[in-house]
Amino acid sequence: MTEYFPEIKKVEYEGNKSRKTLSFKHYNPEEKVGNKSMSDHLRFSVAYWHSFTDRGTDPFGAATIQRPWDEIENPMSKAKERARAAFEFMEKLGLDYFCFHDRDIAPPGDSLKETNDNLDEIVSLFQELMEDKDVELLWGTANLFEHPRYAHGAATSPNSEVFAYAAAQVKKAMEVTKRLGGSNYVFWGGREGYQTLLNTDLGLEQDNLARFLTMAADHAERIGFEGQLLIEPKPMEPTKHQYDFDVEHLAAFLRRYGLERQFKANIEANHATLAGHDFHHELAYARENDLLGSVDANQGDPMLGWDTDQFPTNIYGTTLAMYEILRNNGLAPGGLNFDAKVRRESFKPRDLFAAHIAGIDSFAFGLKVAHRLKEDGVLEEFKQDRYSSFREEVGKKICQNETNFDELESYVIEHIKEPIVLNSGRQEELEGLLNSYITTTN
Amino acid sequence: MTEYFPEIKKVEYEGNKSRKTLSFKHYNPEEKVGNKSMSDHLRFSVAYWHSFTDRGTDPFGAATIQRPWDEIENPMSKAKERARAAFEFMEKLGLDYFCFHDRDIAPPGDSLKETNDNLDEIVSLFQELMEDKDVELLWGTANLFEHPRYAHGAATSPNSEVFAYAAAQVKKAMEVTKRLGGSNYVFWGGREGYQTLLNTDLGLEQDNLARFLTMAADHAERIGFEGQLLIEPKPMEPTKHQYDFDVEHLAAFLRRYGLERQFKANIEANHATLAGHDFHHELAYARENDLLGSVDANQGDPMLGWDTDQFPTNIYGTTLAMYEILRNNGLAPGGLNFDAKVRRESFKPRDLFAAHIAGIDSFAFGLKVAHRLKEDGVLEEFKQDRYSSFREEVGKKICQNETNFDELESYVIEHIKEPIVLNSGRQEELEGLLNSYITTTN
Amino acid sequence: MTEYFPEIKKVEYEGNKSRKTLSFKHYNPEEKVGNKSMSDHLRFSVAYWHSFTDRGTDPFGAATIQRPWDEIENPMSKAKERARAAFEFMEKLGLDYFCFHDRDIAPPGDSLKETNDNLDEIVSLFQELMEDKDVELLWGTANLFEHPRYAHGAATSPNSEVFAYAAAQVKKAMEVTKRLGGSNYVFWGGREGYQTLLNTDLGLEQDNLARFLTMAADHAERIGFEGQLLIEPKPMEPTKHQYDFDVEHLAAFLRRYGLERQFKANIEANHATLAGHDFHHELAYARENDLLGSVDANQGDPMLGWDTDQFPTNIYGTTLAMYEILRNNGLAPGGLNFDAKVRRESFKPRDLFAAHIAGIDSFAFGLKVAHRLKEDGVLEEFKQDRYSSFREEVGKKICQNETNFDELESYVIEHIKEPIVLNSGRQEELEGLLNSYITTTN
Amino acid sequence: MTEYFPEIKKVEYEGNKSRKTLSFKHYNPEEKVGNKSMSDHLRFSVAYWHSFTDRGTDPFGAATIQRPWDEIENPMSKAKERARAAFEFMEKLGLDYFCFHDRDIAPPGDSLKETNDNLDEIVSLFQELMEDKDVELLWGTANLFEHPRYAHGAATSPNSEVFAYAAAQVKKAMEVTKRLGGSNYVFWGGREGYQTLLNTDLGLEQDNLARFLTMAADHAERIGFEGQLLIEPKPMEPTKHQYDFDVEHLAAFLRRYGLERQFKANIEANHATLAGHDFHHELAYARENDLLGSVDANQGDPMLGWDTDQFPTNIYGTTLAMYEILRNNGLAPGGLNFDAKVRRESFKPRDLFAAHIAGIDSFAFGLKVAHRLKEDGVLEEFKQDRYSSFREEVGKKICQNETNFDELESYVIEHIKEPIVLNSGRQEELEGLLNSYITTTN
Repeated sequence: MTEYFPEIKKVEYEGNKSRKTLSFKHYNPEEKVGNKSMSDHLRFSVAYWHSFTDRGTDPFGAATIQRPWDEIENPMSKAKERARAAFEFMEKLGLDYFCFHDRDIAPPGDSLKETNDNLDEIVSLFQELMEDKDVELLWGTANLFEHPRYAHGAATSPNSEVFAYAAAQVKKAMEVTKRLGGSNYVFWGGREGYQTLLNTDLGLEQDNLARFLTMAADHAERIGFEGQLLIEPKPMEPTKHQYDFDVEHLAAFLRRYGLERQFKANIEANHATLAGHDFHHELAYARENDLLGSVDANQGDPMLGWDTDQFPTNIYGTTLAMYEILRNNGLAPGGLNFDAKVRRESFKPRDLFAAHIAGIDSFAFGLKVAHRLKEDGVLEEFKQDRYSSFREEVGKKICQNETNFDELESYVIEHIKEPIVLNSGRQEELEGLLNSYITTTN
Repeated sequence: MTEYFPEIKKVEYEGNKSRKTLSFKHYNPEEKVGNKSMSDHLRFSVAYWHSFTDRGTDPFGAATIQRPWDEIENPMSKAKERARAAFEFMEKLGLDYFCFHDRDIAPPGDSLKETNDNLDEIVSLFQELMEDKDVELLWGTANLFEHPRYAHGAATSPNSEVFAYAAAQVKKAMEVTKRLGGSNYVFWGGREGYQTLLNTDLGLEQDNLARFLTMAADHAERIGFEGQLLIEPKPMEPTKHQYDFDVEHLAAFLRRYGLERQFKANIEANHATLAGHDFHHELAYARENDLLGSVDANQGDPMLGWDTDQFPTNIYGTTLAMYEILRNNGLAPGGLNFDAKVRRESFKPRDLFAAHIAGIDSFAFGLKVAHRLKEDGVLEEFKQDRYSSFREEVGKKICQNETNFDELESYVIEHIKEPIVLNSGRQEELEGLLNSYITTTN
Repeated sequence: MTEYFPEIKKVEYEGNKSRKTLSFKHYNPEEKVGNKSMSDHLRFSVAYWHSFTDRGTDPFGAATIQRPWDEIENPMSKAKERARAAFEFMEKLGLDYFCFHDRDIAPPGDSLKETNDNLDEIVSLFQELMEDKDVELLWGTANLFEHPRYAHGAATSPNSEVFAYAAAQVKKAMEVTKRLGGSNYVFWGGREGYQTLLNTDLGLEQDNLARFLTMAADHAERIGFEGQLLIEPKPMEPTKHQYDFDVEHLAAFLRRYGLERQFKANIEANHATLAGHDFHHELAYARENDLLGSVDANQGDPMLGWDTDQFPTNIYGTTLAMYEILRNNGLAPGGLNFDAKVRRESFKPRDLFAAHIAGIDSFAFGLKVAHRLKEDGVLEEFKQDRYSSFREEVGKKICQNETNFDELESYVIEHIKEPIVLNSGRQEELEGLLNSYITTTN
Repeated sequence: MTEYFPEIKKVEYEGNKSRKTLSFKHYNPEEKVGNKSMSDHLRFSVAYWHSFTDRGTDPFGAATIQRPWDEIENPMSKAKERARAAFEFMEKLGLDYFCFHDRDIAPPGDSLKETNDNLDEIVSLFQELMEDKDVELLWGTANLFEHPRYAHGAATSPNSEVFAYAAAQVKKAMEVTKRLGGSNYVFWGGREGYQTLLNTDLGLEQDNLARFLTMAADHAERIGFEGQLLIEPKPMEPTKHQYDFDVEHLAAFLRRYGLERQFKANIEANHATLAGHDFHHELAYARENDLLGSVDANQGDPMLGWDTDQFPTNIYGTTLAMYEILRNNGLAPGGLNFDAKVRRESFKPRDLFAAHIAGIDSFAFGLKVAHRLKEDGVLEEFKQDRYSSFREEVGKKICQNETNFDELESYVIEHIKEPIVLNSGRQEELEGLLNSYITTTN
């Protein structure tokens, strides 16, 4: 059997002291952190599109990425070799999950039927490879943004034929996701937004998006797909404004159309920062609003205004993300999908391994720090104390919805002695505390 | 009777050809635009805080603003002279409305009771002046962000006494708003947010904010206040993250807590742009979601990352805003409040007049352009045509919720001939069209 | 002879009242504005790459643009048909100039020699077409960013063979620019920057960039190219940091390496805003520093963080740009090159015409407003007055470099009576004044 | 003798395992890192204004900060008590340096002479306290932005009296800096910029700024001040555009006016990020351009668009900064000045200690990581290898300026075999490497 990456051996955990580049310094899959193994906490997934289909083009440059299957001409043969190589990659890294778009894994045909046939053929191969390599499907999705028919959107296209086509495509994508045992199905509204309000019927487009998602949820039920349905927010790019701008915009939308029990959020770090939020914020908001479904683990560059989809190597980012995830009792059935691409200048197969290792270790390290923070309770105890007045007297009445403005005014006049004494927020001390956890974890 | 701005005469409409600086070139209050007068369309309001209380400090500099009441020592006397001058200002500009915070108009006392007494005394003076000058109150609000007690927030403070104090303060502010016949009451969550998630209980704080607003709505009903209740979104500043980040975050919040029928949005242009949205977008979203209550008419500098609160002089901004407002059948009971401040370097009384004139004329001009655009129907007809496929056949079934993925897949396979033919979005042509309206309006 | 855009007739000036979409409302080429015709003031140029080579791909989508030469298979035949269509386009719009990259106009061959031969063949055709259609070359340039060899930069590549290749390519591009009578030659440092400092020798890369440009200037002299040499700043994208970040970074670079007399700036509006500057600012700085060479006339979206290269339709932008250009006594030998692309959703040939018309009219209108502002002298007189104290007494001594700190201290102690009385900056009044010029120009 | 912070004992190094909050986990002043002690590497300085004068106001709120000298009424008495407390603070933290503005340390009088007398009196006290506590002056500066006279700028004011006043003020500030043995003198151009170009003579203002700095350098020489002269870039705030936007703008300015040998840059992290640059970038550029003078050690929030001046706790920031500083052979005579303020919500004296400890430890940790990175040579070796082709053959000729375009073209045609083989940039691997150094340092 062909080995596609013969220069790379299986990547092993060697511990933090190792100088071996292509090894895990922190990720030791079976190691217990609390009562779960690292791999159960982290549920890492590889993103098929970035890692196996993307060629490294950018708006100013041609393909640079070098992959063993580059020279194969026949699209289906190429798709198959790519798949075999991809599963070798996952096995060598010890990744448990992958994610894909329909069009990543199989080439389109001349008609929807032919396209679906291609897809089915590749899916059969995937089934074999998944069994062989012991890899599972975290989620599937449909690519509703690349083909010119989707230039004005898919579910929000001004053309009803495009809506219908998108529906047919998602139907099939949900079905193959089910066939591959996917734990989730994701909707990313790539062009569900607008380029200019001058030509856009905002109300109709949002109504149509809700109709589309309602039909999708119905279809999931009809076919017995038991995975979680997820929507991935992004504020802009490629459109000027995307309707699922951030988790909060998504929440407003779901609540408006009565869909809040059927969908959760797939939160991407770089999309959060493009929306003007810390990744941490979006996770915390989603957790508090019962919307935290899964995570696209990457990072952006805070100095750049587009989606750079870099591998997540900032350990503040990974630590605070894992802290929220631990508070959420984990992500399952969601996971941490590396929706990240190697830089266009990192075009060698080795870089694909190195990049994933950097991301995996950053999250494994973040998990260890976050677990210690949570076990020691240092942040939560601080908060318990900070808000303690809401567990007694007037604070308790407020929280139990048992008071009103009249009573509170009387309380102020009769009982409050000015100036009210506040406690300090101690932000700097807590930042120092976080650093002391980071610099004592290894 | 003292004249406070003797160097400025009543500002008159002189038409666009006039070279007189302190005159209206476009705003002619009684002139009909469609079936309403300009003043009824625009419902201009002056912001008491920026125009009469603010001194022109910034984080790096001391007060610069020169006003006729600067030298008065006694706080109540100063408050009264300021009020008299303010109403002279409104009369000279022909403004119909004003807005205020409780603490703008009257100085605090040593206790809440004394503070409220001061407020009542000034409110009595306002009643006289309003009658005398024929000016009405667009909205009142409470300043819950300036006093140190609100350092950690008001309704979202970790200290229950602060919550109670804020409740008592809003109670009074609502009562004086009612007394002055205010058409609306506004909540701006100045510090209802966080500086760091490390010390913040996001869930409790948002619950408390909802409790506070629920009590406020109850109180409004109890006292028979029939004005509209409004919440003003802002993404950040002074906090790192403000819970009412933008209209969509607000919608998610209101819908979560069942408050969506009791509150609408007061949308500020500069807050929209700080949140990463065009002002136009926030208005359009609010209109479509039945949340468009009132407008804080100002503008930011797109190159600067803080709230500059400049007078609105960009006629694209005013035209597109008025277009949405016309589509909303106007703003009443809301209005256009100039929540804008003269630059710290524009410290003369003359600048206060000139700045309002620039803003008023920009909106009056925008109204005229928007009215022509709407009457001619050029944009709406383009959209009608663009989305026409949703009024027939499969599109109609989609919009009537009478189809599903199975049926749509069959439709695609049986009826759609690829490639689907799309119409162009014609953004550039529409931008040119907008310009041709702007350059032919005078 | 084939007509490529038969559905579009020659675009004529019809004046501002015309409702005809594909006509000029403001641009009347022969009309005098001051002592020059509009066409001499504006020196419009079409950007060959965006308008004739670009296909409408974006990072998330495939080509959408529909052009008459799409179906031609043979690269050289396609290049020729494209050229013929392009010159028909320029003629129908009455554009006087065009700009190109070497690789836009002719396909690469299997070797540099073959590539150069292709280029020469197409250049011969261009010579014919230019003569036939009476169109001139504003500037030529070399594409040093698209081919994978330039992944790490061209003049700043860590690979010396790439430097050499880039040199050979620029040599040829300069030569064909000369052959076509180009008025300027432009350097845009597409990937002359870095993605991460972790792998970058900043000092060597900037030295090499200077070496490259020095050789280029020498070569221009050697071949007798008398056009102006221009460098186009851009802050980022595709790289994280581009060395020619903005005009000021460029000035620092040129002055460091003694190149400030050999190069000027080609200033793009969208690049200015990405760098955090108003377009107006970059033009003003360049004018004051004798660096204003030519302009890439487009605009960005202030809410988006990447180079959107939209057609320039904002009349504030065009007015203030033309104001600086008039103060510069025009741009010649530079011009206004529409470095702008139709939106990917504006995929029809008609859109290409409509977009250019929108841009042309916006600049023609801006010229008319700017000319009136300049003739009336309203802004310059305000400034004359504002700075008048520097034309007398101590101010004059300061400006003549005839004083020092000791003397100034004595002056303060002896002559200055505090508080120093300042004049207001009157920003709002000036913004209103600008609007009054805009709304009275037609 | 009064102890101002009796609740805080001298802060001691306790090592990374200590759980004691107010202790150093990493900063051990006498510990050698390489051949220098930590304190010699880091040269920490406290910023008098933020830490002792600032009251915690923000644009929306009143003072919150609680300090032991708050209740003192008499300005000079307060200034003296504040000074004594400040030096107790420095001693307890073991800080070696401080920085100040003239107006931070002494109150203004009714005339310049009285103001200078006040300053002299306090400076005498400082001399005593500095000797007593063994603290030195890193730099002094003049506050040319707070007083209303500077509303339109100081050296760039349109009013020549203001220019003269600023000159007199800087003269005195330089003299007291010399008297206190300051190692540097800093110019921060607080309002040396503009709010709108509509009222600004850009050329005159920049010329005047150069005249002012030239006189300042002359004055330094005249009085025998041997410290380093520094200019601190900032892009905006309080002005829309500040002339010393970033280090590169500063370089362009200094080179234009022939001042590049007399001034270096004082680089602030938060100012760098506001200008769209990584802090690391500005340090690297300054080092390569011989402009790295001193550092204002703080950090901003990448999601916020204003100068938040937070204490520097991000260890990526501190590590990469120290890496550049080590490559620069240190900062002396500059240092690391904590130009950072406690959050307005961290209003207790304890927070002032905690915040400095967090910043100190973050830089001490960064120093340790950076030192290991530099000693091991991992990054520099990677770069040596990456650029090796410029040390041989054609690359060597390029670097020795011994070739030209003709020769390079011949070289390409004769010697280069396409495709040119590039090495990968390996960004992700290097990011992983950086993390492996961070997570193994303690």
